[in-house]
Amino acid sequence: MGPRKLQVAVSGLGRMGARHALHFLNRTPRAELVAAFTPEESEIAWAQTNLVPFGTKIYTDYDEMLKHPGLEAVVVATVTTVHAEQAIKAINADKHVLCEKPLSTSVEISQSVLDAARAKPHLKVLCGFSRRFDPSYRDAFARVNDSTIGRPSVFRSQTCDKLDPSGFFVAYAEFSGGIFVDCNIHDIDLALWFFGQDSVVKSCYAVGITAVQPELRTHGDVDNGVGVVEFWGGKIAYFYSSRMMAAGQHDMTEIIGTEGKITVNANPQTNLVELSESTGIRREIPPNYYGRFEHAFVVEANEFTAACLENTELPFKLKGAVQAVAIGCALQESLRSGKKIWFDETGRRVEKAQI
Amino acid sequence: MGPRKLQVAVSGLGRMGARHALHFLNRTPRAELVAAFTPEESEIAWAQTNLVPFGTKIYTDYDEMLKHPGLEAVVVATVTTVHAEQAIKAINADKHVLCEKPLSTSVEISQSVLDAARAKPHLKVLCGFSRRFDPSYRDAFARVNDSTIGRPSVFRSQTCDKLDPSGFFVAYAEFSGGIFVDCNIHDIDLALWFFGQDSVVKSCYAVGITAVQPELRTHGDVDNGVGVVEFWGGKIAYFYSSRMMAAGQHDMTEIIGTEGKITVNANPQTNLVELSESTGIRREIPPNYYGRFEHAFVVEANEFTAACLENTELPFKLKGAVQAVAIGCALQESLRSGKKIWFDETGRRVEKAQI
Amino acid sequence: MGPRKLQVAVSGLGRMGARHALHFLNRTPRAELVAAFTPEESEIAWAQTNLVPFGTKIYTDYDEMLKHPGLEAVVVATVTTVHAEQAIKAINADKHVLCEKPLSTSVEISQSVLDAARAKPHLKVLCGFSRRFDPSYRDAFARVNDSTIGRPSVFRSQTCDKLDPSGFFVAYAEFSGGIFVDCNIHDIDLALWFFGQDSVVKSCYAVGITAVQPELRTHGDVDNGVGVVEFWGGKIAYFYSSRMMAAGQHDMTEIIGTEGKITVNANPQTNLVELSESTGIRREIPPNYYGRFEHAFVVEANEFTAACLENTELPFKLKGAVQAVAIGCALQESLRSGKKIWFDETGRRVEKAQI
Amino acid sequence: MGPRKLQVAVSGLGRMGARHALHFLNRTPRAELVAAFTPEESEIAWAQTNLVPFGTKIYTDYDEMLKHPGLEAVVVATVTTVHAEQAIKAINADKHVLCEKPLSTSVEISQSVLDAARAKPHLKVLCGFSRRFDPSYRDAFARVNDSTIGRPSVFRSQTCDKLDPSGFFVAYAEFSGGIFVDCNIHDIDLALWFFGQDSVVKSCYAVGITAVQPELRTHGDVDNGVGVVEFWGGKIAYFYSSRMMAAGQHDMTEIIGTEGKITVNANPQTNLVELSESTGIRREIPPNYYGRFEHAFVVEANEFTAACLENTELPFKLKGAVQAVAIGCALQESLRSGKKIWFDETGRRVEKAQI
Repeated sequence: MGPRKLQVAVSGLGRMGARHALHFLNRTPRAELVAAFTPEESEIAWAQTNLVPFGTKIYTDYDEMLKHPGLEAVVVATVTTVHAEQAIKAINADKHVLCEKPLSTSVEISQSVLDAARAKPHLKVLCGFSRRFDPSYRDAFARVNDSTIGRPSVFRSQTCDKLDPSGFFVAYAEFSGGIFVDCNIHDIDLALWFFGQDSVVKSCYAVGITAVQPELRTHGDVDNGVGVVEFWGGKIAYFYSSRMMAAGQHDMTEIIGTEGKITVNANPQTNLVELSESTGIRREIPPNYYGRFEHAFVVEANEFTAACLENTELPFKLKGAVQAVAIGCALQESLRSGKKIWFDETGRRVEKAQI
Repeated sequence: MGPRKLQVAVSGLGRMGARHALHFLNRTPRAELVAAFTPEESEIAWAQTNLVPFGTKIYTDYDEMLKHPGLEAVVVATVTTVHAEQAIKAINADKHVLCEKPLSTSVEISQSVLDAARAKPHLKVLCGFSRRFDPSYRDAFARVNDSTIGRPSVFRSQTCDKLDPSGFFVAYAEFSGGIFVDCNIHDIDLALWFFGQDSVVKSCYAVGITAVQPELRTHGDVDNGVGVVEFWGGKIAYFYSSRMMAAGQHDMTEIIGTEGKITVNANPQTNLVELSESTGIRREIPPNYYGRFEHAFVVEANEFTAACLENTELPFKLKGAVQAVAIGCALQESLRSGKKIWFDETGRRVEKAQI
Repeated sequence: MGPRKLQVAVSGLGRMGARHALHFLNRTPRAELVAAFTPEESEIAWAQTNLVPFGTKIYTDYDEMLKHPGLEAVVVATVTTVHAEQAIKAINADKHVLCEKPLSTSVEISQSVLDAARAKPHLKVLCGFSRRFDPSYRDAFARVNDSTIGRPSVFRSQTCDKLDPSGFFVAYAEFSGGIFVDCNIHDIDLALWFFGQDSVVKSCYAVGITAVQPELRTHGDVDNGVGVVEFWGGKIAYFYSSRMMAAGQHDMTEIIGTEGKITVNANPQTNLVELSESTGIRREIPPNYYGRFEHAFVVEANEFTAACLENTELPFKLKGAVQAVAIGCALQESLRSGKKIWFDETGRRVEKAQI
Repeated sequence: MGPRKLQVAVSGLGRMGARHALHFLNRTPRAELVAAFTPEESEIAWAQTNLVPFGTKIYTDYDEMLKHPGLEAVVVATVTTVHAEQAIKAINADKHVLCEKPLSTSVEISQSVLDAARAKPHLKVLCGFSRRFDPSYRDAFARVNDSTIGRPSVFRSQTCDKLDPSGFFVAYAEFSGGIFVDCNIHDIDLALWFFGQDSVVKSCYAVGITAVQPELRTHGDVDNGVGVVEFWGGKIAYFYSSRMMAAGQHDMTEIIGTEGKITVNANPQTNLVELSESTGIRREIPPNYYGRFEHAFVVEANEFTAACLENTELPFKLKGAVQAVAIGCALQESLRSGKKIWFDETGRRVEKAQI
């Protein structure tokens, strides 16, 4: 008989939920996937084959799932619109929570998750910023932290999806919160990580276009966005997001310091194969973020589990998830209004320019 | 006896002027460097060794140089502040002109060069945007022109200089026009080239910091700048410039279309050498723009010469040089004021948001 | 209660054995690590902390371990000299076997493992050629198999270790079989995979030097070797191995076909980080083969387990492991004698040149 | 009037001869192309347009050309079979000589050029090993010379041509001397450069196949060759040559030392453009050696000219060209006989193994 395992449930078995379920089932030795919630018939059918034979119980009622005997932790991987509600319910039911990003597309609702978590300081509540678990980003952070590049001053980061001609993103945009909240939220979180979680935003500015999906305009969204964030203390982060990359998914980050620069994934690749053909030399790149971050998600599952079991610190605080949503929403607002948005040195929004 | 050669003079024998002189002397077979102007003693001394023995006459008076018997063309490579004046004088004296960029740091003065050139349509007047002669940029343009990447929609370009701890840039900033006019002018010119020279600016926005040289603030300048330009018709260009790259000079450009992307110099390198050492695998990059664009400057000299001798079209029009200064100045103004600057669909500046 | 899990034991808990043990314990969901064998005190101590608490029983007698109740499969990860003996014992005890490469440094002894395995066709006996499980090599093979590069004709492959100044390799060389059997065995196996497992060797030739460890000569070994193998039918494989790479471990393979070329790991890297420093742009590479192939080892454990549980085909046949040793030994012999070694079209060794 | 210019003639105006002529005409400021020899009508026609108008006189008789008034130097760029004869005639006529590689496909004839040159020590006689003038190779050599990589010990170098389905190489093979003399001669010369011009060969060994052009066998040649050369003192060079690269020309070199490694052109590219397409990320590579070495040929012309005018040392000695032919011929012989060829420590060929 080995040591005890964390009793975990996954809420939502859609694209990402199913992956989380398999990670906890098969690739997180210290966890046991005891339950999963989904009301979707197709997802239930998938679970019958892939989870139930291995001992996972399926619930079609979230509240019932929370009452699963011995349940200790919940992974919230449903659609963004119910992230906060489910996370708060789980917290109130005394469960550790790993909630997919973003907590919400609303700053206030995001804050309510943070408030609920603060009321239960013995619980581990993690927002799933998967890049924080990626070995390349961690390596980059360790180097920045060791002053390898001097003082980090300019931060460029992008999240670009492979072109999906199905129009999926148009329907999705209704609830996604917009490209800066949905895509660049990762980049914003990284900026806060690398610049320091105490960084205070001075201004937000964004522009965008609809190059391939003009229907996005009906949701106030775009398929290509550029955002610029100034931080007090002389730091700039700028972001790019796109829904129309031809070659595949391409996230990348560049941290520019006074004495050097670090890039993460400037040259994306699926694997170590290069092809010499009559048209030149070619390599393929991952088609989506899971192709890029699969390993990071597994690390996330394992570290979350360890922190719950051993009551140790999570690698980053939940507060940052609220900060990231606040910046994402301000960029999205700037995109829509065409106006720059200002904040004073305490982070309070102000109307006048701050120079 | 070979065919006749273009009789060329170079004005200014500073860093870049000396290079131009040598290009016309040694690497432009159809040109003859007959004269050069400089009032600087050190530059005269250099010319005594490097130019005079090969038949170049040195003048310390620009107007006198213009009267050099048989002179047909002048390369203006003095400090930016006298570019326009010397170019106009040369045009008025019926000489072809290759003027270093920018024509001026003022839109109005730049326009006056264009006006002078238009009054003498038989003359070739070229603004030295060296990247237009770089084989990589030309290859990229040919591909974009062939619709390889669909409709170009987002353009990212940067000009980053190696960190120069001497403080040179602080003194230089007094006359340079600022980082967007001095550095990003190339990137702006490229955006106009790739998006189409008829593109109309919709808005300009810039921010910047002084990470290594706070004294730049006294000239309203920065050592790291980010600028965003919207064009009417749904196109965005965004720029980065820096004076503090540790590894060397790094210009690069990314043209993102609806069906593909092209990058130029995403992975800079001095040559084809890679070093495997105990610290990993390393390559060096050029220390400055001449290391990167030497060949482009030589092509520029040769193509300018050919156009003058054969009365053929220059590869691009002078008008673009005025457009580029206008955008550079608007970015610089936005940097200083903290405000977004708007233009209507005719390119006229307006006060209200245009959405 | 989930589905039944394969009952696995690991023999040897040295560097690689400990890794195998952890892979089966934590990263092979369908396997259970029930036993391990090691007579070494330090390894037993390690196991007390890392295996015993999770239910693994430790044996100091290999034969006893084979009698562990319910044991189904054994991973042989001891020193090469006992690979064959332990593998044969396990086979005779009706256990599936995953044996580390090479089966033996002797062709005859390697063949005896194959003979034992053939006598028990219901058992899965796998030689641990880890690269066969690497996603990059698999991708390359799939492409070659799809005729992407025409007919594969020339094969270049290398296995180069980071310089280890401790002198470990000198002692190790006494039993390793030599650099072609120890290092290039992987490359030889890959050549057989990519050229076709039925390929017949026509000649073997090798040379080598001792650039950093002259003591290797006492074991007839070298620290840098170059080997060339001709196959009947007009194919050439050539190999390089080295013990003195400064930057880290560098395996790489190049498959050259009549219509294209594929490389695997031509540009090694630890992760997706690139560093811009005053000395240029740099990336690090893995220090050892485990840094490069960790994931492949985990896949190996999982696929071996699945094949045992479901009685399906292993991804490659054991016979190839004997072929690879035969080629490795011929190269090693050529290295020592300075002579080319010939084989006829049936693979039988002959004395005279075959042209 | 500028300083005097070297009076140069080019013999042969075929593919490479025409390029040499243009280099001396247009891109070698200190030289004047006063004469050219060719008996070919098509080449004469080309010269009428491209050389004659600029003052070059065309001869159809080589001996007549040597008598051109004031002629000081001759570039021999005819077919290999007359290189030596023309070079010796020019030397005997007291002209400096730049002779294309190889001097001859015969060691004895190559030696006769060297003998002729030694009899006229005031003349500059250069064999056109273009890579010696390539900035990347020079950078690599400077680093090796500075002990950056410790003691150079293993040298890998390749010369691979783009697949030419026209069958040109079959006809060409009749006079080329074979793939090791024609292609790898460059790599051999580089090995002698990097290992030291005094290196003494210990053994030569080669194998080859005809993967795409079986007719090459009629000339004792192959379209893919692998050669291995041992040098006394513990150094190994190994070479690869191919006539069937799909993507373009790919020369590359790897110098492996006891403390590091340097590669030249491990990742070939036409320029700095990278394309992101639906099939991945791609770059093109030069179609032929001129696309790769154009700049090196121009440097060669200029440095040869300067050495003649100023009576300074050429960058390398003619003797090496004979050494390279000797090694190339030994590899070619080994390819044909299937046998290893031995040399003693004085470089004298011997029959028995030397260990």
